[in-house]
Amino acid sequence: MTRPLRLALLGCGTVGAEVVRLLHEQAADLAARIGAPLEIAGIAVRRQGRDRGGLPVDPGVFTTDALGLIKRDDVDVVVEMVGGIEPARTWLVEALRAGKSVVTANKALLAEDGGTLHDAAAESGADLYYEASVAGAIPLLRPLRESLQGDTITRVTGIVNGTTNFILSAMDATGAGFAEALDEATELGYAEADPTADVEGFDAAAKAAILASLAFHTRVSAADVYREGITEVTAADVASAKAMGCTIKLLCIASRGPDSTGTESISVRVYPAMIPRSHPLASVGDAFNAVFVEAAAAGQLMFYGRGAGGSPTASAVLGDVVAVSRNRLAGVRTPSESSYAALPIRPMGEAVTRYHISLDVADRAGVLATVAGVFARHEVSIATVRQASASSSGGATPAARGVDAILVIVTHAAPDAALAATVEELRGLDIVRSIASVLRVEGGV
Amino acid sequence: MTRPLRLALLGCGTVGAEVVRLLHEQAADLAARIGAPLEIAGIAVRRQGRDRGGLPVDPGVFTTDALGLIKRDDVDVVVEMVGGIEPARTWLVEALRAGKSVVTANKALLAEDGGTLHDAAAESGADLYYEASVAGAIPLLRPLRESLQGDTITRVTGIVNGTTNFILSAMDATGAGFAEALDEATELGYAEADPTADVEGFDAAAKAAILASLAFHTRVSAADVYREGITEVTAADVASAKAMGCTIKLLCIASRGPDSTGTESISVRVYPAMIPRSHPLASVGDAFNAVFVEAAAAGQLMFYGRGAGGSPTASAVLGDVVAVSRNRLAGVRTPSESSYAALPIRPMGEAVTRYHISLDVADRAGVLATVAGVFARHEVSIATVRQASASSSGGATPAARGVDAILVIVTHAAPDAALAATVEELRGLDIVRSIASVLRVEGGV
Repeated sequence: MTRPLRLALLGCGTVGAEVVRLLHEQAADLAARIGAPLEIAGIAVRRQGRDRGGLPVDPGVFTTDALGLIKRDDVDVVVEMVGGIEPARTWLVEALRAGKSVVTANKALLAEDGGTLHDAAAESGADLYYEASVAGAIPLLRPLRESLQGDTITRVTGIVNGTTNFILSAMDATGAGFAEALDEATELGYAEADPTADVEGFDAAAKAAILASLAFHTRVSAADVYREGITEVTAADVASAKAMGCTIKLLCIASRGPDSTGTESISVRVYPAMIPRSHPLASVGDAFNAVFVEAAAAGQLMFYGRGAGGSPTASAVLGDVVAVSRNRLAGVRTPSESSYAALPIRPMGEAVTRYHISLDVADRAGVLATVAGVFARHEVSIATVRQASASSSGGATPAARGVDAILVIVTHAAPDAALAATVEELRGLDIVRSIASVLRVEGGV
Repeated sequence: MTRPLRLALLGCGTVGAEVVRLLHEQAADLAARIGAPLEIAGIAVRRQGRDRGGLPVDPGVFTTDALGLIKRDDVDVVVEMVGGIEPARTWLVEALRAGKSVVTANKALLAEDGGTLHDAAAESGADLYYEASVAGAIPLLRPLRESLQGDTITRVTGIVNGTTNFILSAMDATGAGFAEALDEATELGYAEADPTADVEGFDAAAKAAILASLAFHTRVSAADVYREGITEVTAADVASAKAMGCTIKLLCIASRGPDSTGTESISVRVYPAMIPRSHPLASVGDAFNAVFVEAAAAGQLMFYGRGAGGSPTASAVLGDVVAVSRNRLAGVRTPSESSYAALPIRPMGEAVTRYHISLDVADRAGVLATVAGVFARHEVSIATVRQASASSSGGATPAARGVDAILVIVTHAAPDAALAATVEELRGLDIVRSIASVLRVEGGV
């Protein structure tokens, strides 16, 4: 056995404390797997002296001087579990420049400005690992960036936010509205006091950017990701989905293909969508995560597991710690960022999607012809139309709402802009009393 | 760009031809990802001059002298797609000794004598990759040997043989018997002319050995794996499973834990078992594969995809080719085999399982007491007993079979030897007319 490898841990919250516990508990196994023992050189925390009862470390390792800790000569690996853009970015750039191996769970930073980190890593030849940043313990980044690198990934469709999946699962199970389901999630600890990052899709969008970057060998940042949250999903939408044999999930989707001019390009987006109950993602319940990958040769793959929580995230962090430690001992590094393809990113309007539209319309002759004419004008092809009974639409009866009939239309795939323009024009028709539900449809209904 | 990396392909069947095709089609992407172009130095085949129409290679690359090809100085990477123990073992040992990087899809060889390959790789410091050997394109080996190396894997439960999964799925869907379902599988090309390796569980056992080796950092060979095939699974078993809300799958199971003396040990086994329909593995249909992994910190994970076929296997092979090529260019190698734990392997009798037993018994007072007494004598605890109606047992009516009642018993977990001995003793009771079905139960019914 050679000299110990020394870790600087930044942050000691839920994940950090679990990492400390596992480093202690599994010390012998980790040492055997690496070929050298791991030691904690220091733990950077915001406030000194807070009670960290039970953590199996010398209280002297805690410090409020993160930058000082990072720069220490006896630190080999920096493990960042603080989150947020700053000061995490400054710390990690500093660490990489100093040639320290970096392990981070910071999805926001990677999605916002991963390029800066990758550049710093490339310059100094340091390892930058971030498996814990997406889908917690599910091994996903390594399969994407290593196992599938002999293949062409065409599409990644994921449920990558546990909070929203819990809320949507609850709405599906009980018929509750969004507000009620959010309250339940908050009560049970699945949603934070300020749930904005989750319910507005910011968290999922950050993960979508990271997944797309790896899948398509192209730098994608959070700003490139089209994003809609789940706050406007109604009980009526959920009922509409049920009537179609579907369920609603907040999906992150990254796809590649030729655009209308034939140029290979990518589209990255996050929104709630209907998927058939027979789709493997439909049965991913509660706070679980799953990512469905389609590749030219491999076909369809799915990865499933716990996307959050102290232990699963700590498992992913430690897997990375072992990897960079082995590399360090061997004096090697893992291949760095692969962004050679630099594919252009399509605006949302050019993404190809399908819509499910539920309309309350006047029940008079010629209504369907008028409605169908609107779709035709926007070159949107209709896959199915049905006149729904009031009960299956989940709302009040047509009579109670003063409408005469409900039309449920599912389109074929079309550019999102054409679909959106179709909905806008429908909204302006006087035979359309109201648009009860508009949802994108994914996963081949 | 540096000089090309040159490949020796051994074998040009379904997988080999697909690898050749993809090497050609994706040449630019592969070169960009590796940092150097790939070239085919030669393709070893059994018979020269066979028509290999349409393969995008110079006909001059084909040779029947595999060993000569492997030893050539201009060969960097040897890709073995021949299968079987010999001559593959001789070839790969030769390649590793000569310092060539090796990529193989050969599960039989790895399971039979992986140690010899790993030793040869360790001696010369050459890379040995074998993602394609288990579950085709599903990235599984890299997650096990890298992503989860900071965690303690406690159990791996997999559906890793597509042929048997197709047969069992068909039996479940149609109520057909084994022979009939096998015929259908053969007709559709899911089963080979000689289906022994699949239906007797040899293929699954080889994969179980490879998965257990990686999961538990212990050398496990095919001979260490307890194995039962699916040839004795009857339509009545399938009906019994249905009545329990279960389905029957051929599972490969690798688990670790303390044995009766408290020693940490592992158990590796392949057999058909009942799992609840709500279990994620239950919905894995047709020829798909899926592997369910449980780890102390990560919790439950599942990996799903196509386990066989030319394209999926070629995807896995090429992912490995890119990895070893990048390593070669960088002058590094991936950490080699990890077998430090060397955990003892428990015999099947000491594996802890649960049984589902369906008995045709005489309908007279005291029968249940007598039967329960047998379980108690073997210290097997009964979880549930129910008197099944004849219709739900799936067979002929009790009267038609000359029996009076059907008892369906599910046990709690117990050593397999105690469960087997219980069944033996039941078989000898004169109140037991026949034992209609005995199946192990997995996945927590």
